[in-house]
Amino acid sequence: MAGNPAERNVFVEHAFPEKQVDLGEITMNYAEAGSPDKPALLLVPEQTGSWWSYEPSMGKLAESFHVFAVDLRGQGRSDWTPRRYTLDNFGNDLVRFISTVIGKPVIVSGCSSGGVLAAWLSAYAMPGQIRAAHCEDAPLFASELVPAFGHGIMQAAGPMFMMWNRYLGDQWSVGDWPAMYKLMTDNTPFDVVEKMFPDGTEAPQFFKEYDPEWARAFYEGTVAQSCPHDIMLSKVKTPILLTHHMRHEDPETGILGGAISDAQAMRMKQIVEAAGQRFDYQDHPTALHMMHQYDPDLYVKVITEWAATLG
Amino acid sequence: MAGNPAERNVFVEHAFPEKQVDLGEITMNYAEAGSPDKPALLLVPEQTGSWWSYEPSMGKLAESFHVFAVDLRGQGRSDWTPRRYTLDNFGNDLVRFISTVIGKPVIVSGCSSGGVLAAWLSAYAMPGQIRAAHCEDAPLFASELVPAFGHGIMQAAGPMFMMWNRYLGDQWSVGDWPAMYKLMTDNTPFDVVEKMFPDGTEAPQFFKEYDPEWARAFYEGTVAQSCPHDIMLSKVKTPILLTHHMRHEDPETGILGGAISDAQAMRMKQIVEAAGQRFDYQDHPTALHMMHQYDPDLYVKVITEWAATLG
Repeated sequence: MAGNPAERNVFVEHAFPEKQVDLGEITMNYAEAGSPDKPALLLVPEQTGSWWSYEPSMGKLAESFHVFAVDLRGQGRSDWTPRRYTLDNFGNDLVRFISTVIGKPVIVSGCSSGGVLAAWLSAYAMPGQIRAAHCEDAPLFASELVPAFGHGIMQAAGPMFMMWNRYLGDQWSVGDWPAMYKLMTDNTPFDVVEKMFPDGTEAPQFFKEYDPEWARAFYEGTVAQSCPHDIMLSKVKTPILLTHHMRHEDPETGILGGAISDAQAMRMKQIVEAAGQRFDYQDHPTALHMMHQYDPDLYVKVITEWAATLG
Repeated sequence: MAGNPAERNVFVEHAFPEKQVDLGEITMNYAEAGSPDKPALLLVPEQTGSWWSYEPSMGKLAESFHVFAVDLRGQGRSDWTPRRYTLDNFGNDLVRFISTVIGKPVIVSGCSSGGVLAAWLSAYAMPGQIRAAHCEDAPLFASELVPAFGHGIMQAAGPMFMMWNRYLGDQWSVGDWPAMYKLMTDNTPFDVVEKMFPDGTEAPQFFKEYDPEWARAFYEGTVAQSCPHDIMLSKVKTPILLTHHMRHEDPETGILGGAISDAQAMRMKQIVEAAGQRFDYQDHPTALHMMHQYDPDLYVKVITEWAATLG
């Protein structure tokens, strides 16, 4: 299993053709759907997700948008870059992708860490690249090691990420899937194991395409070391939509099962509005983390209706 | 003295007119000289240096090149970006500058940390942007907190940077110049104080234009946390020239006065050549760190003659 994904032959066919573009440091893999005369929509998957986590949504989205879904560095058929997984590097890959491939202003919708990157693009992309940013159940603050507000990664997904990295290893250098699966089953406080890994005998497809060094970059905090979320949010330059999905606070431990706490979502709203930008909040308490994958009809409705309100 | 440089009114006139460009996160200040029909040359100053440290060289360089000299973020009239001083962010500012302002392939020459960024651009810029990179007395490895080879920042400029940051403060929040000057005079093992600060009563012009948080990013290691120099050098895609200037190893302590050790320079050569790229080394043991400022004739000769050997 070890090595660069291009040499690992773990891939499967998909309903949309894949393309690649040389961005300098990495070659980025992506899929495109819809007509160039529609507004551009850039889709950025969650950690462990390849572009095709948007496959259930892309057909419908293509009726209204020119859709681009990407593999970030360290995922899918895009290059792996050991020691270099940061929000700023992920974000600048997307800046280059927009200027090289898309070539017009985009609405960006990203899920989870991809939603943090949607906010990053609103703040830090080149002038005129971004029209608006949808942060789909995005862990603002909650994916930092030392956030300015609320709980951090070690009070959330951090311990799970440590298991992933220890038993799979950077670049799958360990690859002990059975040990990881057993620990996940025994120890994870959240009800995610069965949903993420319905078949315990083998890593699921999206996981085979994932560099587990991503997980380490999050629990060691290097991913956002030089990109504090509060500063980033204070620099956003476009409308922002946060959709807030299923979450649950354990009444005994206070541990949050979910991407971002209600208080963190409200702090996000304060900072974005103080920056002079429009902030929309939608509560979807029954939606799974990847609404775009598990409830494509609702996701397409959310995106399409929100896009219609933009100038 | 505190605050963003644009609000501090510390600037002076120069021989070349200054321009600004909005790159998204920052507005970058720069000066331009020479004709657009000459080959493009991008000049990246050392830590604490504004674009005008190249002022003594630019007139002569403009006879052969279309010259652009920049203020990096945190220096001169470019924006200050607290918490966000990293090689990857400095480097991506330059990628955006090349695509937005220069619009053609460039030779880049950078001094000291600017020379590390010249190597960064060779490795990580967008395809076709960089023709060749001159690293002027650049601290490869020696400006990392934990380098893969040889000594690191705390065995070199780190202790001096700690003094700068402590007594001046991030964004000049402290600004106690007399205390800093006294400590520099008493404690610095290198013979740099008189050269850098000939007048102890007041900070020199280049220092007034400098955000001392730069220094902290270096001694805390965040500047290169996710950009290990050995990995970066293994990715260079163009010819590289290292000019190696005055240095001195204390025979009793082994402390290096100078930017990069002889052994580190040879390791740099090995990695670049293993990457399949041409590596040229010039020993200039009597040149000061900023040859471009203090010996412009020699600097212009080095650049012009080396450029003539490129394809």
